[in-house]
Order: sequence, then structure tokens, then C-alpha cells
Amino acid sequence: MTKEPKLSLIPLGGLGEIGKNMMVVRFGENILLVDCGLMFPEEEMLGIDIVIPDISYLLENREIVRGIVLTHGHEDHIGALPYVLRQLKVPVYGTKLTLGLLQGKLKEQGIYGEAALHTVKPRDSVQIGPFKVEFIRVSHSIPDAVAVAIHTPLGVVLHTGDFKIDQTPVDGQVTDFQRLAQLGEKGVLVLLSDSTNAERPGYTMSERVVGNTFDETFRQTTDRIIIATFATNVHRLQQAIQAAYKHNRKVAVVGRSMVNVVNIANELGYMDIPEGTLVELEEANRLPRSRVVILTTGSQGEPMSALTRMALADHRQVEILPGDTIIISAIPIPGNEKLVARIIDQLFKQGARVIYEPVSGIHVSGHPSQEELKLMINLVRPKFFVPVHGEYRMLIKHAELARDVGVLPENIFVAENGQVLEFTRRSGRIVGRVTAGKVLVDGLGVGDVGNIVLRDRKLLSQDGILIVVVTINRESGLIMAGPDIVSRGFVYVRESEELLEEAKIKVKSALDKCTEKGISEWSSIKSQVRDALGKFLYEKTRRRPMILPIIMEV
Amino acid sequence: MTKEPKLSLIPLGGLGEIGKNMMVVRFGENILLVDCGLMFPEEEMLGIDIVIPDISYLLENREIVRGIVLTHGHEDHIGALPYVLRQLKVPVYGTKLTLGLLQGKLKEQGIYGEAALHTVKPRDSVQIGPFKVEFIRVSHSIPDAVAVAIHTPLGVVLHTGDFKIDQTPVDGQVTDFQRLAQLGEKGVLVLLSDSTNAERPGYTMSERVVGNTFDETFRQTTDRIIIATFATNVHRLQQAIQAAYKHNRKVAVVGRSMVNVVNIANELGYMDIPEGTLVELEEANRLPRSRVVILTTGSQGEPMSALTRMALADHRQVEILPGDTIIISAIPIPGNEKLVARIIDQLFKQGARVIYEPVSGIHVSGHPSQEELKLMINLVRPKFFVPVHGEYRMLIKHAELARDVGVLPENIFVAENGQVLEFTRRSGRIVGRVTAGKVLVDGLGVGDVGNIVLRDRKLLSQDGILIVVVTINRESGLIMAGPDIVSRGFVYVRESEELLEEAKIKVKSALDKCTEKGISEWSSIKSQVRDALGKFLYEKTRRRPMILPIIMEV
Repeated sequence: MTKEPKLSLIPLGGLGEIGKNMMVVRFGENILLVDCGLMFPEEEMLGIDIVIPDISYLLENREIVRGIVLTHGHEDHIGALPYVLRQLKVPVYGTKLTLGLLQGKLKEQGIYGEAALHTVKPRDSVQIGPFKVEFIRVSHSIPDAVAVAIHTPLGVVLHTGDFKIDQTPVDGQVTDFQRLAQLGEKGVLVLLSDSTNAERPGYTMSERVVGNTFDETFRQTTDRIIIATFATNVHRLQQAIQAAYKHNRKVAVVGRSMVNVVNIANELGYMDIPEGTLVELEEANRLPRSRVVILTTGSQGEPMSALTRMALADHRQVEILPGDTIIISAIPIPGNEKLVARIIDQLFKQGARVIYEPVSGIHVSGHPSQEELKLMINLVRPKFFVPVHGEYRMLIKHAELARDVGVLPENIFVAENGQVLEFTRRSGRIVGRVTAGKVLVDGLGVGDVGNIVLRDRKLLSQDGILIVVVTINRESGLIMAGPDIVSRGFVYVRESEELLEEAKIKVKSALDKCTEKGISEWSSIKSQVRDALGKFLYEKTRRRPMILPIIMEV
Repeated sequence: MTKEPKLSLIPLGGLGEIGKNMMVVRFGENILLVDCGLMFPEEEMLGIDIVIPDISYLLENREIVRGIVLTHGHEDHIGALPYVLRQLKVPVYGTKLTLGLLQGKLKEQGIYGEAALHTVKPRDSVQIGPFKVEFIRVSHSIPDAVAVAIHTPLGVVLHTGDFKIDQTPVDGQVTDFQRLAQLGEKGVLVLLSDSTNAERPGYTMSERVVGNTFDETFRQTTDRIIIATFATNVHRLQQAIQAAYKHNRKVAVVGRSMVNVVNIANELGYMDIPEGTLVELEEANRLPRSRVVILTTGSQGEPMSALTRMALADHRQVEILPGDTIIISAIPIPGNEKLVARIIDQLFKQGARVIYEPVSGIHVSGHPSQEELKLMINLVRPKFFVPVHGEYRMLIKHAELARDVGVLPENIFVAENGQVLEFTRRSGRIVGRVTAGKVLVDGLGVGDVGNIVLRDRKLLSQDGILIVVVTINRESGLIMAGPDIVSRGFVYVRESEELLEEAKIKVKSALDKCTEKGISEWSSIKSQVRDALGKFLYEKTRRRPMILPIIMEV
């Protein structure tokens, strides 16, 4: 009897963080990837545009990567594909809307033609290498979201993707409890489940609640209405459009990404827009304000977004006026709180009425709260449980919930990106670690900004830079020009001429000392200059700018 | 009949922001100042340490500034005094603990001897110029907080300071409803009231709730307990110490600012510490862990705080171990959410149990919610109302509450820093504006970092800097050395040698073009170099580093 190949799960992203979700399912010499997302940069990643997972492990095993399956079309699940597909030519499987959104991205990046995209439907199964992958409908804040059940020779791995248990979803497409329960009845080996809201007690409210709030707000409002929400929340947009239609208003969509999503979702049949309800902004601007709704991006206070520009009276086509009602149909993603608060303040200053408190039913989450998480585990009854999609404390909390509903503590794995979880039919354990991490994307550069560059940017951002230039005669070592000092981001020069003059004298005397002592090696001279100047500036200002001596030889 | 002097209120800080509270009360040729606080820098104020109010208006009127009264000892009410007292020699009035905390700051800054500090008690009145200033006890998250009733010839101006309506305060010192009601009965001209929690419905819970939670948590915990909270929350510290005493634990205080506050508060009689309960950390570390409580700073995830260092296993004396229970007795101040979340994650990773959800009764606010705000207005029954201490939307919300309880809409003023509100006995209006704003403190520099420096720091932080140096012969204009290119924060040099080589060629050809065209003015040459190099780099990298050409002449 030959030894049975092993089943491994290797998270390459999404554990211990919100973003860049990517899970490797490996059975023997076959790899299947679930999701391929990006993350938005942390505050300290200065100048970075986006962050994608380190896929060294996949590139080392490129011959055995059989395919990528996608759970839904959010950036943190599909956003790294344009980068990954450049290096890894493998088929991609997803539902219609998910692939529709992906296509847009691939076209933008000029690699659309090269990708092999396969559309699947809920309850479809596809064979990918040794894996039979089944797609199961779940509710989420974007339509066409699925969980994936991966049937392997050792058992079923069920990955929920992002989900919530919405009993009254806007599109009527309830989470496929029947299929989940069937799988639970037959036996699921491992459940990987969404931990985003594992800290929240109770149930997440139905998306329909927001529709009711829109309806009620529209009923009471006689002037223009502006709604800011997430560009991809098609159900939310649909409900806004319905409310507009009911209350005899026209709708204009503002903001590139939202226009894009509405076009794709409408084209693919995921929206039901009454004839004539959607109008161009120009037309909306000619209508009485009581007949207009504007849907827009910027609910996170993003500096370049449409709402931010409106709030700062900097939008070419939309001017906020007293009487406007602005609904922020979102809550700030952690880290964006202050940005959003500032936008709200600005809107109030323009005289608008702003509805933004989450208590008022203008936003609900797309992720499951504790009771839903427990329901999912009880439906599926997995032998092993791995909380995914969450920061560490969320994973911990989710693990506690799993214990509460009866999963054996030794069968629960709170893992980190890069850890290899190995399963047999009977046992599971963490056996090792592969390369995993963050690859920073800055402009066209993928991975060329690392810790040294970030450290320099941090230093530069705190106290600026002083550049000391001196030209020296090659033979005599005598100073031919300079030293000159140029500063940026250190101190306002006109107010500190004296300081910089003194600094120049310090540099000169440091250089003279080098000459006296016969120090001629550039690195030594530079470090003498750096030390003398640094000490002087710290004494005078208590600041530590970067000091960059440059020596030219003639 | 001579014209009666006018009464003006001029906020120099604290309106449209949380921080740097400072209110000018002017009657004729007399100025009284209420509070003198600092603000912590916004995210985009790169490298800035603190922000203080612009006091140009006070300096222009220095001859008529009669005094400064303080409502309580928080940084956002007293933190700018060390800077302001250097420029303005006026007496300062405050309660014992407030002045105790202030003295520490003044000593640190070496200006203690110069300040004239006058201690007052609740229900005291002092005559300051034409103002009779009365101090009225209120509850807050620091002991010895007071409202001030300023009796002027035109009527009473009541400034609440920061307050909450705590019916069961830890020190038993309930807000002085009687005196507030008396003033209301006699008639108050203007009420200035704390807007921090104006968005929150209901009542803020009593500080005592936290004591109960401590007691319950201590009862259930058998290993070490670490509590992180605000250094100045003396009541909170008192309750932790009481719970420790009750459950037979010793308490060690860690973190410079908290040690400092405990020393001052204890010395001045604001704490009741059972003999032998407080121990040094060294002693605590020798005790069984079940007998130890550590009180520490760092509840906001501040990078240099004790808790952060513990979480990162970087604290010299406290090592987090599995079994430790850590209570984060605070909520993140807006902007600190991600910092705090990271610390919690790190503590979990060290194996600790972390109690951090605000729902669990481990923290209550020190500011009044909507019902308390309405109670204050109803107690005081002011003719005019000015919401203070809050961001714009909070002021707006507070103004709505005032309308709800019957203040005439035309008598409510949502003002901005620098606006002059002028009152007679019968009327109030905004009549103009004086200089007000932010003065940035960076190291020893007060106000020397302005918009240009901040803009440069921002630019540097995004894409770094490239310095281009070239030495030119004074007479011939020929290049004698260079061009050399040095970059920092742009790209990791070893991986991009080729790019920088190409860049050098671009610079050379730009310089050659200048020679050909006979361009010899340095500013023109520099701008040619900047343009050519900027264009090249943007094409190659989609980044826009700062480009700094330096020309040396020999």
C-alpha cells in the first residue's frame, strides 16, 4: 500500500489581517488557490499604493498550481489577480459578476486576453486536478458570492468566503442552507470561516433594513438627496434606485468606480433599473432638486473621491447647498474614522443635513455576527475548524465560538499566514512554514520598495532632510566650492537663515578637522560631517533630520 | 450716559476640533481666559509633537489680559500654558489638583518660578478685573473639575468646562446642581457647554460601573492582572486599587506619566491608598502572580508607552505570559483605533487574555451624553447658548439639543475659532473675526514649521527624494564633476542601478541642451533638469519623487 498523499492548507494572506485573502489547498502534487486579494496599505507604508501577497511559494510550485477559485468580486479577494496572473498562467473560476468585475481590472492592466476565465453558477461543480470544487450560494454585500466546498480524497474542505446569514436578501437569493446542511450531514473535514465580525454579539441585520431606511428618508425629504456608499454594494445601490423610483426621483451615479460597477452589474442582469430612472449628472442638474438622487463614492472619506471633492466644494459638477440631505451609507473602515468625520464636518459647514449615525439603519455589515458564525458551524459540523479572514483577536474570538458549539479544542487552529496545516482523515496539525508576506506596490514598482526605503520615507517625513555638498580638489584635498547646505522639510528657510549659516560653519570646521588629521576617506569625512551637524541641529532644535553629505571631486 | 462696554466671547481653540481649548471673555478693556490647552497633531502634521493655539490676539492685547482660569487638569485644557506663560505674565487660577498637575509641567519646562498660581475651591469666588469668577463643582474623568460662572456687568457667562452628570461619583462629590440651579433661577446670559458626546443618545454611565467590573473581574481571575487606562483618570486608578486591596493583591504603577499623576494625586489627598497596597514593580515581580495588579499607560496604543512595549515583548521589567489578564480600560480616541487593535492582537499572540470590548463595562466616558446636556441647559436656562469643545458636527448636534429644550434658535451660536461673539443684555451676534489658528511645536521650534515644510515632508514621505549634483566651471560653463544622483526613500538602490544610470544620462542630456541653447541661468538649468528627470522617472515608475538639483561652481 502506497502512502496516501497529504492534504495541506496554507494561508498566504488574510490571517491576522483584513485583506489580501489567499488560501492554498494542496493535495499531494496539486495546488488549488482560493481567492487572490489585495490589501490597502497600513498608515506606516508611506507612499505605497496597494499590498499584495508574496506568492514565492506558488512560483516555486508553479507546475502544480491547477487553478484559482474566487468567492466573490471584492478587491480583497480578486485585487491581486492582475499581478499574480502575469506570473502564473492558470485558469480562474468564479461566478458571473465576480468575473465581470475581474475582467474590468484585467483590461485596465492590459492582460485580459491572456487569462482563462471560467464562469460557474451556484451548485455547479468543476473538477480541477484532483479537486471537485462545488460553489454554494451565500449572502454578502456584493451579489453572486459563494462558498466553495472542495472535495478531496481525504474529505471536504469548506471555505465560506465572506458571508452573512441574510434571511431576506434584496435579490431573494438566500444562503443555500440545504446544501450546507447536506454537506454537514455527510461530514466536512475542515471548515474555514469568515471572522470579520467575530467580536460582534447577535445577528447582523438584513440588507433590507437599509432599503426601509432609504424609503422612510426619501418620504420625509423634499430637497436633493445624495447617498455615499461602497461602489460594489450592488444591493444597496439597487435599493436606493428603487426608493428613488417610488418617490419619483431620478438617479445619477457619480464616481468612476461606482459608474463602472453599475454598468457591469446592470449589463449582467444583477440590477433591476426602471426605464428612465438612471440619468446623466448633467440631466440631473437640470431637474428640480426635489427630483434628484445622487449615488456616489467616498463613504470612506477617500481624498480623491467624489464625496470628498463635493464636501470641499471642489467637485466640478456637484455643489453642496443648504437643503441637501446626505446619507453616509457605510461605517468607516478602521483607520478611516478621522477622514470620514472630517468630510461630515465639511458637509455640515456647507449647510447640508448629514445622516451618518450607524444606529439609524443606514448601513448594515456584510459579515456574520456571532450567532451566524455559530449557525454556520452547526450547519456544517466540521471535524476541524480554521478561522480565516480577520485580525488575530477576531480569529481568537471565532475559535472560542467554535469551542462553544462543540468543536474539539484540539481540532481548532488559529494559524498565521505562511503556516502549513496538514490534515489526514483523523488528525490535523501545524507542520511548518512557507514564505508568506507582503509585497508592496508603488506605482509600477512591485516589491522594489522594501524596509529600507520605507524607513527613509519615515525619517524624511518626520524631520526632513539636509543635504551638504562640497567640491574638493582631487589632488590637494582642498575645498573648491561649498560647503553648501540645502534643506527640505526641516525648517522654513527664510526664518532660519541664521541657523543654517551656523550649520555651515560647523560643517566647515568638521571638514577642516578631517584635513588636519589627514582623514581622506570619503566615508569617514561624511560620517564626521553627519555627526557634527546632527549634534548641532539636535541641540538647537531637538530634531533629527536626515543628513546627507555629498562630496564632489574636481 | 456713556455707552456700556461690550461683552465678547472669542474662542481661540476647541471649536471645530477636540483639543487646545481656550476661550476669551472680554468686557471692555479687560480679558479673562478660560483654559489654555494643547492638541495632539493630526496625521498629516508630519513630525509635529504638539499643537497649541495661536495667541496673537492675546499678545496684541497683552496689557488687558487679567488672568487665566482653568476648569481641570487635562492636557487639552492646561497643556499650552508652559508656552503661553512664557509670553504672557498673568495670574492663573485653578483647583488644587489642576494646579498640582500644572506645576509638574512648568517645572519640566523650567518656568515654574515665574508663574503666579492661585488655588481655588468649588464655591469660591475670585475677582479678576471686572469679572467675579465663581468655581462650581462638576464630575469628570479627573477629580477637581469645575465649571466657571463669570459674573460680568451684563450678566453671567457660564462655562461648563468638561463634565458629566455622575449621580454616584467615586469621590462622592456630586456635580453642584444646587448652585447651577440658583444661577438658572437668577438668570444666565450665556451658557458654553461641552459638546464631546453630543452625538450620543441617553446618559453616560457612572464611573462606579467600572469599579464594579474591576471587582467582578478580579474575583474571577487567579493570575496576574494588568490594567491600562488614561494616566490622569484618578478615579479609575482609585477603583483599581480598591479592587486590588479587596482581593488581596498588591499594585505596581508603570509608565512615567501615570506614576507622576498617582504621586501628585496621592500627595494632595485625592487618592485613598490602603497602607502597603502600592509596591514598586521590582517587589511586585517577586510576588506570586495571583497577588499582583499592574496599572499602566498605553491604553491608546502609543508607540512608546509601557503597554506597547509589553505587547511587543520589549519592556525591561514586565513580560506578558500566558495566563495574564489584561484590561484595556479605555476606548480608542478617534485616530488611534488601529494602533490599539494592533496592541490587542500582540497581547493575544503572547497568550494573554485581553478584555477590551467597551460593552463589557470596563470603560465609561467622562463627557455628558444628550440627556445630560439637556439637563444642564434646563438647569441653567441660559438666554444665549454656545456649544463648545467639539468637532463641527458635535456642535451642530448640541445646538439641535438646545433648540429641543427651548433655547430660541436665533440665540444659539455655532461658532468657529477666532469669531467674535458680541452680547448685550438682550442681543447676541457674530461681529467679526480675530487671528486664531494652530501653532505647531516640533522639538524646540514653536511655529517654525509651517505649510511649506509640511508639504515638503508629505512629498518626501510619498516617493522620497532624488538629489542631482553637478559641478560646473565658472567661466566655461563646462561640467567639471557629476552629474551625480543620490536618492533616499525613492527606490532600493541596489535593485535599481540601471534606472539611476539611465536617469544620469537624462540629466546629462538636459544639461547639454542648456549649453547648446546658451542657457546659463541656474534657475533655468535646474528647472530643465527637474522636468526632464521627473518626466523620465514618472514614465518608468509612475512615481513623483522630489527632485533637487544642486549646482556647484568652481
